[in-house]
Amino acid sequence: MSGPSQIPPAKSRELPIGIFDSGIGGLTVAREIHRTLPHEDLVYLGDTARVPYGTKSPNTVIRYALEDTRFLLTQNVKAVVVACNTASAWALSTLQRSFPVPVIGVILPGVRAALEQTRTGRIGVIGTAATVRSQAYTLGIHAGRDSAQLFARACPLLVPLVEEGRVNDRITRLILKDYLAPLLRRRIDTLVLGCTHYPLLKTALREVVGPKVALVDSAESCARFVREELGRLRLLNTRRRRAGKIFPYVTDEVERFTEQADRFLGFPTEPAFKVDLPAM
Amino acid sequence: MSGPSQIPPAKSRELPIGIFDSGIGGLTVAREIHRTLPHEDLVYLGDTARVPYGTKSPNTVIRYALEDTRFLLTQNVKAVVVACNTASAWALSTLQRSFPVPVIGVILPGVRAALEQTRTGRIGVIGTAATVRSQAYTLGIHAGRDSAQLFARACPLLVPLVEEGRVNDRITRLILKDYLAPLLRRRIDTLVLGCTHYPLLKTALREVVGPKVALVDSAESCARFVREELGRLRLLNTRRRRAGKIFPYVTDEVERFTEQADRFLGFPTEPAFKVDLPAM
Repeated sequence: MSGPSQIPPAKSRELPIGIFDSGIGGLTVAREIHRTLPHEDLVYLGDTARVPYGTKSPNTVIRYALEDTRFLLTQNVKAVVVACNTASAWALSTLQRSFPVPVIGVILPGVRAALEQTRTGRIGVIGTAATVRSQAYTLGIHAGRDSAQLFARACPLLVPLVEEGRVNDRITRLILKDYLAPLLRRRIDTLVLGCTHYPLLKTALREVVGPKVALVDSAESCARFVREELGRLRLLNTRRRRAGKIFPYVTDEVERFTEQADRFLGFPTEPAFKVDLPAM
Repeated sequence: MSGPSQIPPAKSRELPIGIFDSGIGGLTVAREIHRTLPHEDLVYLGDTARVPYGTKSPNTVIRYALEDTRFLLTQNVKAVVVACNTASAWALSTLQRSFPVPVIGVILPGVRAALEQTRTGRIGVIGTAATVRSQAYTLGIHAGRDSAQLFARACPLLVPLVEEGRVNDRITRLILKDYLAPLLRRRIDTLVLGCTHYPLLKTALREVVGPKVALVDSAESCARFVREELGRLRLLNTRRRRAGKIFPYVTDEVERFTEQADRFLGFPTEPAFKVDLPAM
């Protein structure tokens, strides 16, 4: 993470936190940040015109992440949270080098939480094809503990299942069994939900993995990490007492986002606006 | 369909046919056009950096389709085939008004083929959420035959299932049963495969619908329609005897396209190139 080393002026602390994702999934991260830091305003960008990122190439994901971050900076945010595992996996270091505010991803917090949870050091992770291909989790887990073993599986059907509202039906459980069987055969004791959509599948996932496997929710661990990092950088909005708000922006039209947002967020946002992101 | 009314110079007939799709699915249409018109060169554009179109809004799909078509015209094509049901549903008339070459979609050919096949006039169609929402099939079927009834179902999981290679496994058959049950209860006798990915599911679809329901493959009916229309406009390349080639372009990186292309096309293409589409 990059960031200013001097103590920032009190005014910066009152600025909103920026969050972006390829679509609406990152609202699970926004929800947890809002729960953890209830006085912070959040500016959320969902790149719904180009969703998903998880099937695209590294260079394309990096380009989109740069454009997303640049938009958030026009909204005068004090920090940027990359609430998309694929963008965190491929673009985080580029973003950290390219912009003058702290940029926080979802991978490292998930890795840390998994290393805290695991007893056997046998950790599974599920995510998009691009996230798994990136090896970001493998590298993070091994950097944290040499002896840990990571078993990763790409699960391309889970995002469309969640978006169709099939969060716990028979077909979803069958698909989860199919995806998770190889990880369970490796006797993992911890499973990282490496995609923002997956927290909505927690009930079905719990049924499939049984009671003994710890589930690491990237959104929860990311929110705790954001609190720690902004605290360390003295960027937390400690004075305000009113509840923070969430200001959503999307790149496709707002209707579909608004229809689905409540399901991911659990409460209403401010009205969403459509933006065009200029190409870099 | 728009198009020049005077007889075009012989040189135009030797130009390639342009085809675009949101990704690789349109290769099923390219395959059928190549089979039907083996001496034609085809320039194929897959907008893989922004795939899929089927979950996006009408205005966004129209904007992308305009950019795709504009690119094909820079490649000096004599006609454009919109090998994407969603783009055909939302953008065809805008494209026909905006460009000086014939523009042919996949919806009307599928509608005609369904009306030829059906005995009872009870027709089902499956496609993306956007295609179904557009009502393009409903309007087309009713324009062709007042008394026909159309039953449409959005099937968002089928594209990711095909892209994962699950074209006939147990999970795919279960999902197909689930999607098709309401259509079969309406006693359809004809089912239009209203998405370019679905021809790869034909074997599984046949098992699920049984032997009595006719399956209309949009790609096949589109290829026949292209031959008729280009024949009518005297744009067929009738002189050449060498086999036509397929020249693919993609907006994301070429590797993933190349990996999957053979499966959709059944034979190798020329090497693919990456292009950036300037925004309109």
